[in-house]
Amino acid sequence: MNDPRIPAPSAGQDLGAAQTTQDLRALIDRLQQTAAARDRAGGHAAQEKQWIADAGLLTLAVPREFGGAGARWLDVYETIRAIARVDSALAHLLGFQYLQIVSIDVWGNDAQRERYLRGTVEGRWWWGNAVNPLDARLVASATDDGGYLLDGVKGFCSGTRGSQMMTVSAHDPATGKPIFAVVPTARAGIVVNEDWNPIGQRQTDSGSVSFARVKVEAQEVLHRSETAPAPRATLRTLVSQLVLTNLFVGIAEGALEEARRYVTQHVRPWINSGVEHARDDPYLLQRFGEMRLKAVGAQALATRAALALDDAWSKGHTLTADERAHVALVVSEAKIYAHRAALDVSESLFDACGARATGAPLALDRFWRNARVHTLHDPLDYRVRDVGRYALDGTLPDVSLYT
Amino acid sequence: MNDPRIPAPSAGQDLGAAQTTQDLRALIDRLQQTAAARDRAGGHAAQEKQWIADAGLLTLAVPREFGGAGARWLDVYETIRAIARVDSALAHLLGFQYLQIVSIDVWGNDAQRERYLRGTVEGRWWWGNAVNPLDARLVASATDDGGYLLDGVKGFCSGTRGSQMMTVSAHDPATGKPIFAVVPTARAGIVVNEDWNPIGQRQTDSGSVSFARVKVEAQEVLHRSETAPAPRATLRTLVSQLVLTNLFVGIAEGALEEARRYVTQHVRPWINSGVEHARDDPYLLQRFGEMRLKAVGAQALATRAALALDDAWSKGHTLTADERAHVALVVSEAKIYAHRAALDVSESLFDACGARATGAPLALDRFWRNARVHTLHDPLDYRVRDVGRYALDGTLPDVSLYT
Amino acid sequence: MNDPRIPAPSAGQDLGAAQTTQDLRALIDRLQQTAAARDRAGGHAAQEKQWIADAGLLTLAVPREFGGAGARWLDVYETIRAIARVDSALAHLLGFQYLQIVSIDVWGNDAQRERYLRGTVEGRWWWGNAVNPLDARLVASATDDGGYLLDGVKGFCSGTRGSQMMTVSAHDPATGKPIFAVVPTARAGIVVNEDWNPIGQRQTDSGSVSFARVKVEAQEVLHRSETAPAPRATLRTLVSQLVLTNLFVGIAEGALEEARRYVTQHVRPWINSGVEHARDDPYLLQRFGEMRLKAVGAQALATRAALALDDAWSKGHTLTADERAHVALVVSEAKIYAHRAALDVSESLFDACGARATGAPLALDRFWRNARVHTLHDPLDYRVRDVGRYALDGTLPDVSLYT
Amino acid sequence: MNDPRIPAPSAGQDLGAAQTTQDLRALIDRLQQTAAARDRAGGHAAQEKQWIADAGLLTLAVPREFGGAGARWLDVYETIRAIARVDSALAHLLGFQYLQIVSIDVWGNDAQRERYLRGTVEGRWWWGNAVNPLDARLVASATDDGGYLLDGVKGFCSGTRGSQMMTVSAHDPATGKPIFAVVPTARAGIVVNEDWNPIGQRQTDSGSVSFARVKVEAQEVLHRSETAPAPRATLRTLVSQLVLTNLFVGIAEGALEEARRYVTQHVRPWINSGVEHARDDPYLLQRFGEMRLKAVGAQALATRAALALDDAWSKGHTLTADERAHVALVVSEAKIYAHRAALDVSESLFDACGARATGAPLALDRFWRNARVHTLHDPLDYRVRDVGRYALDGTLPDVSLYT
Repeated sequence: MNDPRIPAPSAGQDLGAAQTTQDLRALIDRLQQTAAARDRAGGHAAQEKQWIADAGLLTLAVPREFGGAGARWLDVYETIRAIARVDSALAHLLGFQYLQIVSIDVWGNDAQRERYLRGTVEGRWWWGNAVNPLDARLVASATDDGGYLLDGVKGFCSGTRGSQMMTVSAHDPATGKPIFAVVPTARAGIVVNEDWNPIGQRQTDSGSVSFARVKVEAQEVLHRSETAPAPRATLRTLVSQLVLTNLFVGIAEGALEEARRYVTQHVRPWINSGVEHARDDPYLLQRFGEMRLKAVGAQALATRAALALDDAWSKGHTLTADERAHVALVVSEAKIYAHRAALDVSESLFDACGARATGAPLALDRFWRNARVHTLHDPLDYRVRDVGRYALDGTLPDVSLYT
Repeated sequence: MNDPRIPAPSAGQDLGAAQTTQDLRALIDRLQQTAAARDRAGGHAAQEKQWIADAGLLTLAVPREFGGAGARWLDVYETIRAIARVDSALAHLLGFQYLQIVSIDVWGNDAQRERYLRGTVEGRWWWGNAVNPLDARLVASATDDGGYLLDGVKGFCSGTRGSQMMTVSAHDPATGKPIFAVVPTARAGIVVNEDWNPIGQRQTDSGSVSFARVKVEAQEVLHRSETAPAPRATLRTLVSQLVLTNLFVGIAEGALEEARRYVTQHVRPWINSGVEHARDDPYLLQRFGEMRLKAVGAQALATRAALALDDAWSKGHTLTADERAHVALVVSEAKIYAHRAALDVSESLFDACGARATGAPLALDRFWRNARVHTLHDPLDYRVRDVGRYALDGTLPDVSLYT
Repeated sequence: MNDPRIPAPSAGQDLGAAQTTQDLRALIDRLQQTAAARDRAGGHAAQEKQWIADAGLLTLAVPREFGGAGARWLDVYETIRAIARVDSALAHLLGFQYLQIVSIDVWGNDAQRERYLRGTVEGRWWWGNAVNPLDARLVASATDDGGYLLDGVKGFCSGTRGSQMMTVSAHDPATGKPIFAVVPTARAGIVVNEDWNPIGQRQTDSGSVSFARVKVEAQEVLHRSETAPAPRATLRTLVSQLVLTNLFVGIAEGALEEARRYVTQHVRPWINSGVEHARDDPYLLQRFGEMRLKAVGAQALATRAALALDDAWSKGHTLTADERAHVALVVSEAKIYAHRAALDVSESLFDACGARATGAPLALDRFWRNARVHTLHDPLDYRVRDVGRYALDGTLPDVSLYT
Repeated sequence: MNDPRIPAPSAGQDLGAAQTTQDLRALIDRLQQTAAARDRAGGHAAQEKQWIADAGLLTLAVPREFGGAGARWLDVYETIRAIARVDSALAHLLGFQYLQIVSIDVWGNDAQRERYLRGTVEGRWWWGNAVNPLDARLVASATDDGGYLLDGVKGFCSGTRGSQMMTVSAHDPATGKPIFAVVPTARAGIVVNEDWNPIGQRQTDSGSVSFARVKVEAQEVLHRSETAPAPRATLRTLVSQLVLTNLFVGIAEGALEEARRYVTQHVRPWINSGVEHARDDPYLLQRFGEMRLKAVGAQALATRAALALDDAWSKGHTLTADERAHVALVVSEAKIYAHRAALDVSESLFDACGARATGAPLALDRFWRNARVHTLHDPLDYRVRDVGRYALDGTLPDVSLYT
């Protein structure tokens, strides 16, 4: 009886068929069983990525005309969020799979969309990315045939390891601007380095990729630096920001769910509480209330933003810059709430569960570590400033690398 | 391009035709001009209540079969919220008008619904209420004809002054439970006392009403204490809680709007800020960002709750207790967010506007005082506890006086 | 058994002889009885100012050599804070009395110190001030005899009404800088305007003062704009900021004390609390805990700052700029804590006391209104920035109008 | 020019000779160099414990009559805090060394104090503890000679590994109460298990200890369960709670110091910040301001509590229960502030430092993990409740395991 479009958060028992197919549910259960162990080990999750592919999730965002599911964004994000509840690193890989698909969709010409989007469906390709815009070390030299040669290195290349294809951006010294292209990961001269070792999000394979005279064919170039992108093309950034937002929401929901499970199974009432069962402790109930409130607020704004994105997306090439900027605003609002919810709930989890929950094998701190690593892509403060500018004088956010 | 069902908050410029009719817009403008002065004076707003009636708002919640607008709850609450932005006391009166209409609708028999709901349309009645359930001083003595005699006094009777009709609850010593009934305000023995003098919400006419051998006819009795209410009938409490919620949201939005207007017109940059215009002050932008974020979160959850209520309402007598309890949960979640947003934004208003905004004639503190008075109906803590209980073990809130 | 230098906050029962003389205690009791009524009325508190003078408090900060009590700052601030618990407007007047005394002490030459400081003792003068540095409307024209003629108006002149003497600053167009002087309030050409009507701190008489060709004698000029002040002289600003800080602490303590008193006398347990007495309600206890924690933190930092000021003060003319800047830092830290404590506790008071505490005659909102008006002298954000700059790179705050 | 008794927090540059001896400074530098690596490795820090002993710190709290330094508590806690800034696990071991010394001092008879306190000085003993009061699995059976036999296991036995002596508590089924005793760690039947593997505080050696028919001599029994402890003896609990408090303060200070160092060395301004140097970013300065404010508040209350403890300690056997309870109150207040500061600052560290600071080798998350593990000894909520009860009705905290 909730609006199905603003679903209630999971308190464990209400994550049902309405939101996830049986296949997805089974996948999530399998991922959950090894999540703590894989967090400790880090490294590449080849087996788990296979399971995700087997569950048919790789093509969820591929338009139907190319054989994909053509799901609306609300459903795409629900899927990411559901996986992020148990494993936000693999959910990130899947979210970035969708992001690369969108990149092709909005930047590619008809031939490229046909080749790469249909190719994703037929070849069950995993996509990686080498497009971190703040890293200018990778250089593209134009070749006579309309292609480029790539030399240098790129950092934070999530999902490249074990991928079949990747998107890449490189600095073109001739124009001073970046070019964007697609290359197969196996192309000669590309080395995916195994140098990703962070405190959280340990299986996103976000290490560096080295390029030594890597050939990019003319037909692989998605976007030449001289072109100013249309509003629809810049939705890609918002798709990306909502991926992160939903990862944060999933982390908050997952931490709440783990707290619920642990407390229900293990926690006894505090000696001075005067209650017989932990579930009647007034302060424990309050803590769960505040955790859920954080999660619920983040969910509601994430849903509001996904609906706005779906609406803008459906406008296609008629989308105006102003309409696009309104989506950017609501995406920022959702991301701020989700950022704070992920950190707060994953810290509160321990206040709820108590000292015995700090054993390293349980790895219950992974929610906080995952949230902490992932909430640093861009500083929250400048996003709040953007929201404030709109509130004060109605100025909408500019198109930027992060908004 | 936002989802029209989750509208973006007003930053002043985006409160347009989509949300409010021209009549409503004109009404709001008139109310705004005297809001500060009427806050100081307190007392009864006879003229302004007439304007509200003239704008055709009294019957918004009356079902179409009785000649009303039969608006869905989402729209009813949008209207309350729009008025609360400039005058949360009059918005409260209107919200409680709708609450009395609902009371008739869910508690009345067919004849009563016909008489009172159609009567509201034809007679343009304002309704008051004398039903504060925590005040047991009013006693109902059963009479032989199936009616009652009322004796005693009732506190917090919002809207009774200047009303044509009122609902009343009284303690029936024979059963130990309350009865509910309708009486015309002009009935012999009823005295509406002019004793409402609070620090905020000063024009809600929420003083006491004295009853001296006031006759209640059998046909005026809505609800006899022996009956256990159906789930649908208990939605009345949730309608009431969402009225308060939307008043809070409106206060937050209104405070933000006043801050925006004042800063835009009057505020110069701080001497140490290093910026030329206040609108470029990084901390001022941050403050507006945080104010808007508070308002946006409260709006989104209030909308989510209104949608849930509309859905439950449309189920009519098939509504189950469990479905009703889910609505109670999302209403509580919305009310907590709105409560906090109203207090926070109305306090922050001054940080944004600075020392000169503290002149008494501006009465910019009325937002905080209105929020403060109105957020004390029931303690937030027990509402958070209910949310926590659901998050911890899935137990939904019981039907109570406030949930 | 607490360190007497870091006294525990009052929970009502522990404000005893150790901190206040019997005279002060009696004065406070008298002020408290009419505080709510005088808040509503606003205006000038002639009678109450007389009581303060009668209690011997006017000369607490006058050095012993001139017949004053020569109290250390810690004790001066304790006195201000004790009065602020019940009446922060009158405490402000007394605090600014001390501030004018300090101004004479650090800016005056020997003859001026003798004349004005001994004069304060012998004449029981109340001092006002007309020195608001952000208001440049008052102009000083140098005269041939080394004096000035003053013309124009000055705003926020706390305590001038009913005073015998005042300090004044005025813009000297010849140098582009301000001059500072002393003038008797009764001097020809001075009109103290009765135009102070704010939402809080209603009896500080902080209206404007008009000057029409007001003569300032050469011997009345404290500080000529050409001189760069010594570190010791700039302690005056810190004395002023700690006056405000201790007013905030007093407001927080006073609000907590009122909440304690009201709850103890009037509050019954909430219907769903499951406890028999309000004093056993877990959430009410938590709220009192958080209120006290806010007050305690503010107290501890205010004491730390007062000790630092006393230490710097005792260094006299050997005080270095760096030592002075360290005091500025700890004063800012204390002021930030006190600012937040005053607002938070005065808002929480109502959550503790409930709906019936919102009656206008009780005026329990005066704590929040007083805190809100008084915490806007300068924006908190720039003070936090100063603290952050020190934390990041060790740069101490510059001497400014507020630090 | 600060009061030396309320020292300003370190911003890196002001941690000098006034607070730490050269030896201590050298020790801290050595510990810092390997702190991140040892956090990853976990396990026993034999070498580092040797350095601590070599620096002469083991006997700081041993009274002078037995050859110790007899330092006052304020200085003892300053030492713990200084080490905790770089390594809160080893600081915990040292803090618990002092706690065992106090246990002997307040519970032991003259012969025991002579034997164990002088023994600590002469033998340079490290003390461990096996006294976790919530773990009742260790059983003491009285023997005819006035001693006991110990059987069972005890958890959370910080510092037992590598120790020479330990205190132990065990459940005496004959009385239903615990006994306390001293045993050499090498005694037959004692096995220190290497099962400590938490997410933080990884080198506190807080695993379990197994006891198999371990003989306790009569002269080793410190405290028989039938005796009600004097107020002075119960100060031991407060010494313990202030150890934790100062560990938290040290973590907050250390996290701030690391953030300062990292930002100064590595951080460039954000692309949209409009500033040339990160140190001028308004939001970064604000963040450092808030971090320092958290640390400063916790420091001030920890100092206030240490002074109260020193004062109570100096009263010896004349200490009353009420005086002791006042110390318990201020210790709780300090612990709450320190708890929150440690968590907040260690999380904010990353907002200040940005994404590149999340590399696992830097282990900058150890501050949060250490804080998180260590702040779960007892729930904050019940401590806040105690403070609230005092604020509401003046009731001081009872003597308990944690207050």
